[in-house]
Amino acid sequence: MEPPRPIKRSEKAGLPPGSLVYVGRAKAVSGPPRITVIEYGPDHFAEQTLQAVTDLHPLKPTPMVTWINVDGVANPQILKAFGETFSLHPLLLEDILNTDQRPKCEFTETNIYAILKMFEFDTVKQQILTEQVSLVVGENYLITFLEEVGDEFDAIRERLHINHSKFRTSGPDYLAYSLIDTVVDRYFIVLETMGEALDILEAQIESGYDPKLLKRIHRIKREMIFLRKYIWPVREVVTTLQHADTPLLPDVIRPYLRDVYEHTIQVMDTLDTYRDLLAGIQDLYLSIASNRLNEIMKILTIISTIFIPLTFITGVYGMNFLYMPELSWRWGYFTVWLVMLLIAGGMILFVRRKQWL
Amino acid sequence: MEPPRPIKRSEKAGLPPGSLVYVGRAKAVSGPPRITVIEYGPDHFAEQTLQAVTDLHPLKPTPMVTWINVDGVANPQILKAFGETFSLHPLLLEDILNTDQRPKCEFTETNIYAILKMFEFDTVKQQILTEQVSLVVGENYLITFLEEVGDEFDAIRERLHINHSKFRTSGPDYLAYSLIDTVVDRYFIVLETMGEALDILEAQIESGYDPKLLKRIHRIKREMIFLRKYIWPVREVVTTLQHADTPLLPDVIRPYLRDVYEHTIQVMDTLDTYRDLLAGIQDLYLSIASNRLNEIMKILTIISTIFIPLTFITGVYGMNFLYMPELSWRWGYFTVWLVMLLIAGGMILFVRRKQWL
Amino acid sequence: MEPPRPIKRSEKAGLPPGSLVYVGRAKAVSGPPRITVIEYGPDHFAEQTLQAVTDLHPLKPTPMVTWINVDGVANPQILKAFGETFSLHPLLLEDILNTDQRPKCEFTETNIYAILKMFEFDTVKQQILTEQVSLVVGENYLITFLEEVGDEFDAIRERLHINHSKFRTSGPDYLAYSLIDTVVDRYFIVLETMGEALDILEAQIESGYDPKLLKRIHRIKREMIFLRKYIWPVREVVTTLQHADTPLLPDVIRPYLRDVYEHTIQVMDTLDTYRDLLAGIQDLYLSIASNRLNEIMKILTIISTIFIPLTFITGVYGMNFLYMPELSWRWGYFTVWLVMLLIAGGMILFVRRKQWL
Amino acid sequence: MEPPRPIKRSEKAGLPPGSLVYVGRAKAVSGPPRITVIEYGPDHFAEQTLQAVTDLHPLKPTPMVTWINVDGVANPQILKAFGETFSLHPLLLEDILNTDQRPKCEFTETNIYAILKMFEFDTVKQQILTEQVSLVVGENYLITFLEEVGDEFDAIRERLHINHSKFRTSGPDYLAYSLIDTVVDRYFIVLETMGEALDILEAQIESGYDPKLLKRIHRIKREMIFLRKYIWPVREVVTTLQHADTPLLPDVIRPYLRDVYEHTIQVMDTLDTYRDLLAGIQDLYLSIASNRLNEIMKILTIISTIFIPLTFITGVYGMNFLYMPELSWRWGYFTVWLVMLLIAGGMILFVRRKQWL
Amino acid sequence: MEPPRPIKRSEKAGLPPGSLVYVGRAKAVSGPPRITVIEYGPDHFAEQTLQAVTDLHPLKPTPMVTWINVDGVANPQILKAFGETFSLHPLLLEDILNTDQRPKCEFTETNIYAILKMFEFDTVKQQILTEQVSLVVGENYLITFLEEVGDEFDAIRERLHINHSKFRTSGPDYLAYSLIDTVVDRYFIVLETMGEALDILEAQIESGYDPKLLKRIHRIKREMIFLRKYIWPVREVVTTLQHADTPLLPDVIRPYLRDVYEHTIQVMDTLDTYRDLLAGIQDLYLSIASNRLNEIMKILTIISTIFIPLTFITGVYGMNFLYMPELSWRWGYFTVWLVMLLIAGGMILFVRRKQWL
Repeated sequence: MEPPRPIKRSEKAGLPPGSLVYVGRAKAVSGPPRITVIEYGPDHFAEQTLQAVTDLHPLKPTPMVTWINVDGVANPQILKAFGETFSLHPLLLEDILNTDQRPKCEFTETNIYAILKMFEFDTVKQQILTEQVSLVVGENYLITFLEEVGDEFDAIRERLHINHSKFRTSGPDYLAYSLIDTVVDRYFIVLETMGEALDILEAQIESGYDPKLLKRIHRIKREMIFLRKYIWPVREVVTTLQHADTPLLPDVIRPYLRDVYEHTIQVMDTLDTYRDLLAGIQDLYLSIASNRLNEIMKILTIISTIFIPLTFITGVYGMNFLYMPELSWRWGYFTVWLVMLLIAGGMILFVRRKQWL
Repeated sequence: MEPPRPIKRSEKAGLPPGSLVYVGRAKAVSGPPRITVIEYGPDHFAEQTLQAVTDLHPLKPTPMVTWINVDGVANPQILKAFGETFSLHPLLLEDILNTDQRPKCEFTETNIYAILKMFEFDTVKQQILTEQVSLVVGENYLITFLEEVGDEFDAIRERLHINHSKFRTSGPDYLAYSLIDTVVDRYFIVLETMGEALDILEAQIESGYDPKLLKRIHRIKREMIFLRKYIWPVREVVTTLQHADTPLLPDVIRPYLRDVYEHTIQVMDTLDTYRDLLAGIQDLYLSIASNRLNEIMKILTIISTIFIPLTFITGVYGMNFLYMPELSWRWGYFTVWLVMLLIAGGMILFVRRKQWL
Repeated sequence: MEPPRPIKRSEKAGLPPGSLVYVGRAKAVSGPPRITVIEYGPDHFAEQTLQAVTDLHPLKPTPMVTWINVDGVANPQILKAFGETFSLHPLLLEDILNTDQRPKCEFTETNIYAILKMFEFDTVKQQILTEQVSLVVGENYLITFLEEVGDEFDAIRERLHINHSKFRTSGPDYLAYSLIDTVVDRYFIVLETMGEALDILEAQIESGYDPKLLKRIHRIKREMIFLRKYIWPVREVVTTLQHADTPLLPDVIRPYLRDVYEHTIQVMDTLDTYRDLLAGIQDLYLSIASNRLNEIMKILTIISTIFIPLTFITGVYGMNFLYMPELSWRWGYFTVWLVMLLIAGGMILFVRRKQWL
Repeated sequence: MEPPRPIKRSEKAGLPPGSLVYVGRAKAVSGPPRITVIEYGPDHFAEQTLQAVTDLHPLKPTPMVTWINVDGVANPQILKAFGETFSLHPLLLEDILNTDQRPKCEFTETNIYAILKMFEFDTVKQQILTEQVSLVVGENYLITFLEEVGDEFDAIRERLHINHSKFRTSGPDYLAYSLIDTVVDRYFIVLETMGEALDILEAQIESGYDPKLLKRIHRIKREMIFLRKYIWPVREVVTTLQHADTPLLPDVIRPYLRDVYEHTIQVMDTLDTYRDLLAGIQDLYLSIASNRLNEIMKILTIISTIFIPLTFITGVYGMNFLYMPELSWRWGYFTVWLVMLLIAGGMILFVRRKQWL
Repeated sequence: MEPPRPIKRSEKAGLPPGSLVYVGRAKAVSGPPRITVIEYGPDHFAEQTLQAVTDLHPLKPTPMVTWINVDGVANPQILKAFGETFSLHPLLLEDILNTDQRPKCEFTETNIYAILKMFEFDTVKQQILTEQVSLVVGENYLITFLEEVGDEFDAIRERLHINHSKFRTSGPDYLAYSLIDTVVDRYFIVLETMGEALDILEAQIESGYDPKLLKRIHRIKREMIFLRKYIWPVREVVTTLQHADTPLLPDVIRPYLRDVYEHTIQVMDTLDTYRDLLAGIQDLYLSIASNRLNEIMKILTIISTIFIPLTFITGVYGMNFLYMPELSWRWGYFTVWLVMLLIAGGMILFVRRKQWL
């Protein structure tokens, strides 16, 4: 996974449409791709890992469901092989390779394509990581492409092992739904992390002023902007799937898709709520900073207001004029002290009347 | 009831859809659930409290209306029993258990499901509390689920006692409407509390600067964000009910639902008005704080402008040069005083011309 | 009339729908209600004041038009009597009594109900007052309910005296239109008062800084928020009336309703323009306040920058060290003056270069 | 023309609908109205100026097109005469007289009415002036009403002189289109003036701080608010004309109206862009003002930080205690200088480390 | 190319519609126009450069596709020649010449017209440059107009050389699509440059305060406003093309246009994200500036708070009264030092308690 930052697409500009070029930053980090093929039916379950993409061959018509999962799509060759084996549209393969792709879904006569974004919170770097998930639903197969090798779908793989479960008795549509549901469920986890970060931030700001919190606010705001950019179109994807008129999505799956749809709405609601909360927290921070400046200036002004006139008086009697009658008065010094105390008292009264103390 | 804060859903992520897991914070606080069954008709009224969920059994076809109220849904077992007895959809049971659910309503062939949020103002903690209310309307029954044991619907229970009242002669649709109306009416009470808080806040800000008001503003803003999040979808719920094409909602109930709809519109209007008012109050606060800084700096500048030049003059004649002609002048000291008074007067004039005094 | 503030509705919460309870603040102030009945036709005009609500009786079928005006609706008994005599819907009577009602209009088979808000500017308290106006249009009658006894519709009553005028030859639809037109026309008067207040405010802010203007800005903003809340739905009311498919509104009245509609659009436009203007005025105020702080700090800094170094020099030669060669120099004192003048000059140059003078 | 300010409509409130009262400020300034009648066909052109409104008489059916232009509509009598001669609707005559009218267009069976706003930039008063233009399109005539005597349409009048030109061979629809196009084209000129004002403002703000720019920003913002108010509905007017189903607008004129429509869209786009630019310029101004305050405070703090401790030291050795060992040291004075230089140096280092110098 | 600034259209105001006047700033800079004619089919490719516009002649019906590219449209004569040769609508020619034109597309019976904006980043002037691209699609030809001589479409010209490529076997619709795709792809490059500028800006602001960054923020904001103005309507253009019901766009081209459409959506998303990011960066800058002011004032206040009282004390004992008992005390001087240290310590404690150190 990678932080949600814009990716250089410029190297693609000028190439003919349908050119398969990987656009992303996984190039360096990811190892070789991992291709697993799971074939299952109510009573049947078989899993194998393909050694090379050349082992891929077209599916025979069978009542079994085949799930092919590809971890690591950085290699255009693999996609090309899939494109040829399953006759996928070149423009869509291009979208799968372009990891800066906006979430979308598309229908052809034989397939449904859906591209989504998955998020994870990197607790070490305190940063949100993103990964593109692409699904291709066919009549009796599902192909999934992930940017990097990961364990995001292990829970589903586990559940597939159970004989005669809902998974095993349903078609690739239910599997696809489960994967999308898993992706959307992960949004809640990321949002919870953000919600906790907001709570901590708010508590810190209320407990005392710290200029470092400023950058924290800014960082969270930035992450939210990116989250919003990638989550917002997911709503569209799910609602399109829900209302799609295609035999690949039977009526029995619609309530499930509606459920996912409601989850995405809730994710958006929560994200918007967090945005409002963060805006409120930022206002609070700025107001507290301004309060603090007020406080500082108040102290400065009180000290100055009291002592500057007194210092002036001491200056007067520090002058060296030969003829200064007060200097030789017996009680001159004490009178001056008295005058200074009166002035100080008056100033303190003035300051109190202004409600500064 | 609980404060309207986001709830950890992460423990649900990865579970298969339809898994009944309670998502909420009522677990610890709420006691055992309370199940009351009221059966009524124009001339008949019977109320009983179920000892255990096992006492629940399917309803016989009868002209009577049965209202089953469950206080405390934290227990998945109870919901499962209801699901089996009344054949409710597992995804909807899941929504009822998930107390972070967005208000929604859904229709099946035999039932209407509506999930709403109820609010209460905790005058002790000065905080808004929230509770999820779920309604399941059937042909001759209404099931309601509340998060915790409470007395919110006691007024309606009272009115059900009156023979041949509108309640007793109507079906479960009128009862459902009354409950929704009660929930929406409670919004006005919470809004009134907020309105009063705003009035007090405004009066306090106008009467004098107090940094503590800042946090108060922030708190109210936060509560409003949460209120808005939960009240906004209620509008959708009510309008869906109003225009639903289902035999469970006869035409005679529509004007009533339209009335509830108008109330929710008014709640939203009022909430938006309060948001604008709060924004205005915050602006006022910040401007008053800035005014105050202006005022403080003005005092500091006046004091400094008058006394710093005078102190410089006393400094000059406090120097110890052997040859300083003014020091031996007969009227030197008095001349200096005169000069200083002139300078002070000039400075005061300058300050007055700048309209600082 | 009363200031546009939210009203306590909490006392209504829990009552069955259709309960006639007056919600408003006119209770204490208004005297007994005044019921006037005007019966008119092209050649006929008769006006009478009902002594008691019991004098009210159902209208006979007649080619005459009857206008019944009720000033002061605080009394639920009166409304109940009207409801029974003219068979009006209880939920609508409830809305008429609830003076916090959102402007709306509704159609039944025999009646049109419209609820509007009327505004007036109280020049003494410098506050906007609001009053609810409810209209019930029937086949040959119009009933109007006002919150308090007033003279708002006197101009129309006057014009009704003229034989064979447009009023006298038209039905209750034209009378209703005229009343709505009068209500909307009054909005322009209130807006003009606000426009003038904005002009004065702007002139005051441009002519000099005054912290009191802050509260004035806040007050006007608050009034605008309330105006907007009540005027916005009027647009909806008028457009609904304009496009209503009811025999109570013949086609000949549509161009007039369209005219009113355009007036409400213009009212909204003007209100939005004023909101933008007020926001601009507030920005101006804050910027002028900030300018002023800049100015004050500039003066303080100039004075300090020039005199603090000079005061330091006088301090140096005010020290009492036994061995300080400069003190015994013949031209020491004058040299110090020269140095101080040079420093002062340098500082003034520095300040000028910074464009502070 | 007059500045775009709200106009008192209150004197109209209470009058019956259709009352012809001039609402505007042209009363005092404008002289008597000027009525010119131009009759033209492919080979025919005749222009005459009516001495009095009584010379007006209904048009005979003729293949010629008649353009009647009225400069100065302040006189209700003239409009009344037109209303009677051409049987125009009283409510529309009322709109023409009301110069605060929102731009609109309306269709009757025999006429199209369009009311627009024309703008001009008064380079002397540096203010935008506005004038209402009303068009009445009939089968073979066009009547235009302008608020004041002016030369805005002289270019079109010139082009009408050319025999067999597009103007002379087309009907009143093309003439009406040309006039509307002229009005919209003038918007670009006003926008250009604003664009230039924005450029100058931006350059001035970037070159140096000047508090006067604040009021300039405010003035431009205010003008923009008014421009927007009057230009926005023009879009609606033109799109309504474009899609109107009336024989008065033949299909051949639609591409031209579409062209005008695109121009209004572009005007709105440009106005919105300018609003964003102005908001950016205001932000820049405020930030520069805040920068300046920062700068001023920095200087004050540097001066104070260096000299206040030094002045304290000189104060110490200016004390007159009999027993102060340092005073009689041989190198005391020079040591103090050294100490003071070290402190000053330390302070300068501190200030540099803080990146203030 | 030219910076995206509003262009003087005023010289056009008053001209009859369809007048061909070049509105733009390319007049001075561009040399003579360059007209290249490329004729191609699956097996055929011929390219020629026209010496003069008079060499232009109508196309014969042929299975070949002809692409005529005009670099430099400043000359109205050329456009007039094209208009006559290909019978193009005068209003559209006017739009092509007007380089301030809003992106749009239009359909006639024989042609599709599309006007787009191309952007380039001038790395020398650090400014975005803009150029208008106009396309006219006919049955077997495509005419493109560019404002200036450039190499933007060279990549496509190269690919046209390849025999039997998709280009060579498709009609002018595919060529037009490729050109639009090229234009939209260039938006990504400009956006990347802005994204990098934002990243650098953010890093600079986080690393230290620099008033110059303010103007940089303002400049980027201004560029974004202009980008948005020109890119936003492109979405409309592409969606109109995609859903157009014209034989010039066969069904086979729709998936490609859909792909372009998705790219424009992504461009808008990215631009909006950048706007939010820039707003966040500006907030950060202002907060850091405000932090800095806080910091500066803190130092000033600490120094003043500690030294002003001490200086007052030294002033007291610098007075020259004859009778000042303390002066003759044996430990007076040291006592004063002690008192001063105590006061300084107290002040430091006070400051620490306020969390300023």
